[in-house]
Amino acid sequence: MSEAFDTVDIIRAKRDRQQLTSEQIGWVIDAYTREVVADEQMSALAMAILLNGMDRREIADWTAAMIASGERMDFGALSRPTADKHSTGGVGDKITLPLAPLVAACGVAVPQLSGRGLGHTGGTLDKLEAVRGWRADLSNEAMMSQLEDVGAVICAAGAGLAPADKRLYALRDVTGTVEAIPLIASSIMSKKIAEGTGTLVLDVKVGSGAFMKDAASAGELARTMVGLGTDAGVTTVALLTEMGTPLGLTAGNALEVRESVEVLAGGGPSDVVELTVTLAREMLQAAGVTDTDPVDALADGRAMDVWRQMISAQGGDPDAPLPVARETQVVTAEADGVLSRLDALAVGVAAWRLGAGRARKEDPVQAGAGVELHAKPGDQVRAGQPLLTLHTDTPERFARATEALDGAWDIADSSVQPGPLVIDRVSA
Amino acid sequence: MSEAFDTVDIIRAKRDRQQLTSEQIGWVIDAYTREVVADEQMSALAMAILLNGMDRREIADWTAAMIASGERMDFGALSRPTADKHSTGGVGDKITLPLAPLVAACGVAVPQLSGRGLGHTGGTLDKLEAVRGWRADLSNEAMMSQLEDVGAVICAAGAGLAPADKRLYALRDVTGTVEAIPLIASSIMSKKIAEGTGTLVLDVKVGSGAFMKDAASAGELARTMVGLGTDAGVTTVALLTEMGTPLGLTAGNALEVRESVEVLAGGGPSDVVELTVTLAREMLQAAGVTDTDPVDALADGRAMDVWRQMISAQGGDPDAPLPVARETQVVTAEADGVLSRLDALAVGVAAWRLGAGRARKEDPVQAGAGVELHAKPGDQVRAGQPLLTLHTDTPERFARATEALDGAWDIADSSVQPGPLVIDRVSA
Repeated sequence: MSEAFDTVDIIRAKRDRQQLTSEQIGWVIDAYTREVVADEQMSALAMAILLNGMDRREIADWTAAMIASGERMDFGALSRPTADKHSTGGVGDKITLPLAPLVAACGVAVPQLSGRGLGHTGGTLDKLEAVRGWRADLSNEAMMSQLEDVGAVICAAGAGLAPADKRLYALRDVTGTVEAIPLIASSIMSKKIAEGTGTLVLDVKVGSGAFMKDAASAGELARTMVGLGTDAGVTTVALLTEMGTPLGLTAGNALEVRESVEVLAGGGPSDVVELTVTLAREMLQAAGVTDTDPVDALADGRAMDVWRQMISAQGGDPDAPLPVARETQVVTAEADGVLSRLDALAVGVAAWRLGAGRARKEDPVQAGAGVELHAKPGDQVRAGQPLLTLHTDTPERFARATEALDGAWDIADSSVQPGPLVIDRVSA
Repeated sequence: MSEAFDTVDIIRAKRDRQQLTSEQIGWVIDAYTREVVADEQMSALAMAILLNGMDRREIADWTAAMIASGERMDFGALSRPTADKHSTGGVGDKITLPLAPLVAACGVAVPQLSGRGLGHTGGTLDKLEAVRGWRADLSNEAMMSQLEDVGAVICAAGAGLAPADKRLYALRDVTGTVEAIPLIASSIMSKKIAEGTGTLVLDVKVGSGAFMKDAASAGELARTMVGLGTDAGVTTVALLTEMGTPLGLTAGNALEVRESVEVLAGGGPSDVVELTVTLAREMLQAAGVTDTDPVDALADGRAMDVWRQMISAQGGDPDAPLPVARETQVVTAEADGVLSRLDALAVGVAAWRLGAGRARKEDPVQAGAGVELHAKPGDQVRAGQPLLTLHTDTPERFARATEALDGAWDIADSSVQPGPLVIDRVSA
């Protein structure tokens, strides 16, 4: 069969800083799906895109082509509006767990298609799999009926959604081409648009524990994604939020489920509560629901009710005790003072090395492994006081986890005022 | 087996404009040869190198690693010094054919490991295969004994020389990463250094028919290669020569052999003679032979004698008639005046389309196909006078060849002075 374009011409065009046409982009994604464009050609193109960029029209075309590579879902038959949230990933970011039932409790359906963790940021599915019996894989029909009955579902994205993105993401991971804003934005948004949500709230993390280390690149990613969502008819809002230090007091699978349940019970760390409520308000507002305050749904137990139903509907036992790691090791403060910095990346890498995350996608994770924080930046500490507790089933991992924590915090003499959790808001 | 480096770290380093260490470069080439580094990783790295460059030390390390991937040859046992020539490729560039026997006739052995053509520039082996019976493939032993007995050999490079380069070159060809000066320079020089020549003269072509379209990039390539050769102990000189218009009056396999034999017989087009003699003088000087003038060896038939021995030694019949294409078509001048431009690329593409070259490396070539020139820039022409004759066995190719020639020349009112053939000379 004769092809409409030559792959090398397209690679050369981007290499030489030209814009790719809509037809070239549509063809190259389709041909990659058909395996006419080889992996070694797509990785060269991805590197050229990373170094030379794409403009808004090119990114929109790229996203549309990835959506066109697979099936689309439609939540139009549901009796209530839908809202989805996506986080670019951070350390201790368990927000989806309390957020999905909270928003559902306020009358908006939350179809949360999630992934597993790779690297130092945990995956939502890995966290929920710490709950005895809980299953991530649902058919589209089961997902749809749970959305109607319970209002919230957190499950694995089916293989039919943007398959080109799946293949491209795996390729980028091994070719040093993950960090390209056009490719990150189109990867996230192609799945979210194909999924068919009516509204989308993006939590774009900024800081050492995030993908985006500075507010400028996070802002660019946020604006790119809001533009893509808006152009595709999805009401999209992005918050830039702080990820220089871990979110909450836990990083690890069962540890984060425990903390999420505390939030749903009306307690939990103040930063987790603040971000959960802020994102819930954004999702409700985007979905047009303005007559209910999520704080009430946390306080009166409605959010916890939905959580229990959501876990049960997917085979989980909300009352089963959570797994606990076999071994712990305490890390103490070396001086009196104020904890002025506790680095998110270092904690994330430590949790990962303790067994909470995986190095390769086929690796298992330990449900009980992770890092527990006993102080957050701004807190007073005393010499010898526990700062962190490390949890693992495999104590030989303590050494490398401790290595990752070398230089991960500072203790200052005077008081420290942590910056705001929500740094900026981007809307259409 | 545990590896010394992580491929993605190396790709990221070059992507982020860092210098690669000697150890990283040595590992990545070796690991690519061992297929631990995958094609899609090497192509991403090649694109990052193309866009972000490598410095002299990195290029030398890259070249050394490619040499280390295979065997090395040694001409030290020969009774005379050796000199080699490499051209970066042009249209009508048959210089190797008269040059190798000419230099051998002056007392310097010429081991000319050559390739086949791909794209619009012809391959030396394809040209010689127009000679009845001639064989390109020689064992190392046969090559060595021919060098000793005849003094000149033109043959295919064995698979053992810089195998990493062979694999990388094929990869670059399909991933838009051919045009990277560090990779071009190391590809050429790794083979020439591994081959073991004592001296090397580089003919770096500049202009529309060349790989390098402008003198600045050709100069950079020349300096890079001279640096690499010098650092490896090979006396290396580069000439930058004109390739805006074809060299000589023919482009095509048998057509160029015929023209080469004319030069060896003491005739031939003046530009082919000038470049052959200039390169011969550079090779002789580099090899320390200063007591003989190549012009004499052309005039007195000694070069022709070596040509006949060289062809015969490889099974060829120097007296057999050369193949002639079945069909010809004449292209005429449309006005009276002076031919002020005749584009090398257009002529090269026309010859290629007529069957002289191949689109894919497994394609055959037509021995008789090509383009014959009846005028060169600076010559007077009259309306209706033949400018070019197109040769092919397959007349359905005339249309696409003629298309390639659209706008390929200009006819001016006043006289035109063509620029110099040799533009610059680069030495250590």
